Amino acid sequence: MTYTVEELANSVQGKVVGDGSIEIAETRSLDQAAPQAISFAVGEYCEYVGQSKAGAVIVEAPLKDVRIPQIVVSNAKVAFAQILQKFHPPVVFPTGVHETAIIGKDVTIGKNVTVGPYCVIYDNAVIGDNVILHPYVYIGHNAKIGEDTVIYSGAIVHENCILGKRVVLRAKAVIGGEGFGFATENGVHTHIPQVGNVILEDDVEVGSCSCVDNATMGSTLVRRGTKIDNLVHLGHNVEIGEDCFLIAQVGIAGSTKCGNHVIFAGQTGCTGHITIGDNVTFAAKTGIIGSVPSNGTYAGFPQRPHREWLKQSVYENRLPEMAKTIKQLEKELAALKEQLAAK
Amino acid sequence: MTYTVEELANSVQGKVVGDGSIEIAETRSLDQAAPQAISFAVGEYCEYVGQSKAGAVIVEAPLKDVRIPQIVVSNAKVAFAQILQKFHPPVVFPTGVHETAIIGKDVTIGKNVTVGPYCVIYDNAVIGDNVILHPYVYIGHNAKIGEDTVIYSGAIVHENCILGKRVVLRAKAVIGGEGFGFATENGVHTHIPQVGNVILEDDVEVGSCSCVDNATMGSTLVRRGTKIDNLVHLGHNVEIGEDCFLIAQVGIAGSTKCGNHVIFAGQTGCTGHITIGDNVTFAAKTGIIGSVPSNGTYAGFPQRPHREWLKQSVYENRLPEMAKTIKQLEKELAALKEQLAAK
Amino acid sequence: MTYTVEELANSVQGKVVGDGSIEIAETRSLDQAAPQAISFAVGEYCEYVGQSKAGAVIVEAPLKDVRIPQIVVSNAKVAFAQILQKFHPPVVFPTGVHETAIIGKDVTIGKNVTVGPYCVIYDNAVIGDNVILHPYVYIGHNAKIGEDTVIYSGAIVHENCILGKRVVLRAKAVIGGEGFGFATENGVHTHIPQVGNVILEDDVEVGSCSCVDNATMGSTLVRRGTKIDNLVHLGHNVEIGEDCFLIAQVGIAGSTKCGNHVIFAGQTGCTGHITIGDNVTFAAKTGIIGSVPSNGTYAGFPQRPHREWLKQSVYENRLPEMAKTIKQLEKELAALKEQLAAK
Repeated sequence: MTYTVEELANSVQGKVVGDGSIEIAETRSLDQAAPQAISFAVGEYCEYVGQSKAGAVIVEAPLKDVRIPQIVVSNAKVAFAQILQKFHPPVVFPTGVHETAIIGKDVTIGKNVTVGPYCVIYDNAVIGDNVILHPYVYIGHNAKIGEDTVIYSGAIVHENCILGKRVVLRAKAVIGGEGFGFATENGVHTHIPQVGNVILEDDVEVGSCSCVDNATMGSTLVRRGTKIDNLVHLGHNVEIGEDCFLIAQVGIAGSTKCGNHVIFAGQTGCTGHITIGDNVTFAAKTGIIGSVPSNGTYAGFPQRPHREWLKQSVYENRLPEMAKTIKQLEKELAALKEQLAAK
Repeated sequence: MTYTVEELANSVQGKVVGDGSIEIAETRSLDQAAPQAISFAVGEYCEYVGQSKAGAVIVEAPLKDVRIPQIVVSNAKVAFAQILQKFHPPVVFPTGVHETAIIGKDVTIGKNVTVGPYCVIYDNAVIGDNVILHPYVYIGHNAKIGEDTVIYSGAIVHENCILGKRVVLRAKAVIGGEGFGFATENGVHTHIPQVGNVILEDDVEVGSCSCVDNATMGSTLVRRGTKIDNLVHLGHNVEIGEDCFLIAQVGIAGSTKCGNHVIFAGQTGCTGHITIGDNVTFAAKTGIIGSVPSNGTYAGFPQRPHREWLKQSVYENRLPEMAKTIKQLEKELAALKEQLAAK
Repeated sequence: MTYTVEELANSVQGKVVGDGSIEIAETRSLDQAAPQAISFAVGEYCEYVGQSKAGAVIVEAPLKDVRIPQIVVSNAKVAFAQILQKFHPPVVFPTGVHETAIIGKDVTIGKNVTVGPYCVIYDNAVIGDNVILHPYVYIGHNAKIGEDTVIYSGAIVHENCILGKRVVLRAKAVIGGEGFGFATENGVHTHIPQVGNVILEDDVEVGSCSCVDNATMGSTLVRRGTKIDNLVHLGHNVEIGEDCFLIAQVGIAGSTKCGNHVIFAGQTGCTGHITIGDNVTFAAKTGIIGSVPSNGTYAGFPQRPHREWLKQSVYENRLPEMAKTIKQLEKELAALKEQLAAK
């Protein structure tokens, strides 16, 4: 299937600069592009458009001295994403409940729902309109799945959990497993039943094999629009704000609360029972051991302002040299003392 | 369902101080409590009981000047956990083998067992009394599952593995996957078959998506009462003692042996072929690269006594300042020398 | 079943030194051996052969003063692995498609294939000869699985992914989940459809609960012979070379490219969009934040040559002492100044 540049521009509310009649058959990155492909360019990459073999390019402001047609939009990456989807329509799974799915008592299933092979949906669960459940999805008692949510193969939603609209759970994600809470008496640990649930608000994504534990009481909560990558752990009673990113292998311990627009880069760990403000970014592998106010970029373990962490890394490199200098100073000072005593 | 304070006290062998006839309908944390709710308080939290709206409170010693009835027990957290369970009886899954479960040859299934939809149990496996297998649980050839064990959806017990009594495997836990063992010849890695198994003793818990590999020969072993959180990795031939905690995302490399009552906080990593004593605590993100004797608290990478690690963290913060001081000392020393030479 | 030392030697193209007629019934490690068992010894372990109770031993050069028969081979570990397999033939799963497996349209299934209970294979997938799919394996639309590949329970191969020959996916591995790619506009993240695939070349292994994301466009690629442990994350468009090791809980961010024979030890993290050469080893918990040339061993965060990292660790231990010395120097210098001024 091909589209003209004009058609593509219209589909993303963009403006064509150049020949809108050129036919485009695929999407490619700028450096691997070909005449039948459309690419996009932002920031420093704009200067490579001239050398690219792309047939057209999406930009945020018209570029000068570029022969190929340009589609000008406010956000080139978003527009490119929309056009990608035009060229690669996802596999369509037929709606309906597969004959092998097991549906409990008093389950409510909305319109245009796909329930794949070998799904298990337990009593009183509610499945909203247009939901897609891939094979082996498990929905526990009383769980609620909002409209347009997609749950990939083998993901688990334990009992009483609530998922908003347009939520995505990737394969093997586990929502609402019992939190890691124990009472210890004479060195022996007794599990404290965790009777709360998990709430994932609208537009939340959870990656493959990520685990969001349920609350001891109340709810573990991930607010609207937050995106969680693979192999992430959220402990019981954690609260994550809106539009956050939790990159792969991040772990957040129980009862920690975090504001909006926070980024946890990969392998960052965060202790429990602390508070993190809005608009904070943590570099990869940060170890967060105390509350952090709004606004700022942190790194290191314990966490410190990123700039300080960078400086310290430099000084750590110089440590052997510093030690040598100190030794030298001691020696010279001793010599001076002697010299002075001799006078 | 409601209980009187007296009834609740009796159920946890506690003593009532105050009015035992008050009706309690739910459990809540101290700060979110309400008159129909019971809470608990230990340590510093005891001073907040006076301000709480709770209808009753569980404590470890009678508090003075508190209007609401108190239940006095030896361990308030344990008692609260028991009462939590009274108010939140877990969903009951019907006993019996679901018609979609696949049962191999010569499988032994005890009394009151629940085998959920789409479970697969292979030849010669033994399932003890009162075991609950949730949907999609896989039990390999010759595996043994002890009485009262609960295995959540999609967890895997590979062939020959042995689980004790009251073991809990959370969703997607993988027990007995083949260890990561290779022989390398001319840079090409050939997998060494790992023919051992995994033994999880009584009262062990393994969290969601955690992986305990089988042994090359012999057994990977987790002893009685040890609790493992989500996304933890144990390599082949690891041995973990009794009553340990392995918090989320911990990784222990092959053949390491660890004593009793050891705590590995989140994201800690431990090299292989070492020995760790009893009663050791590792702070989050510790990197353990050598054997550690009994008793002590460690942190950092390489691991060091926690107190030293804290001190070093402080000095790392001062590094730029130290470097400046050294420069200043050099300058002053040079000036002194000059001055002295001039005399 | 028993074999003579002669028979075992023949099966690994080895040479017998000593009595080849001795009967061997099992394999054991050197320290736990018994007269009916065969062990192996390399390097420093050779000196323990004399004290071992083993009935025979595999070595790489004939040992002197050893009473028991020796099998001399070029690689003792590889030979031992082959003999292990002789004594522990794996459970054989019957070939054929289980009656509960769901097979889509136009699926091609080779000869001697095992498709276990509750597998789901979607339209146009191709399954090569001798492939074994354990229960609950999901093969997406158009995916290709090469000959002799083994996929354990609950592993997922998403649509369009390509697996070579003799690939092993352990339980719950997820291949081709959608990469973590977003366009952010006014703080709101919109998922960019990831329309590429994953290619795992011949002899690649992926551990339990490891996740290899698909490419935004093109392919995420793991080349021949690379072995990936449990709980590892590979982001979209990552390329890993041949014969690499990625140990447990390693994370590699998107678009990073890595050469051949690279070892990432456990919990190492690697930033995106960088290049790593051939024959590089990263110690456990390394944080790689920039490109690394071929050949070398690195550690720390940011990564630095392993030797430097070790040296710095030592100096970090000395930091409090260094600070004290600096203070002392300041004091002495002040005293000297005073003394000099007084003269």
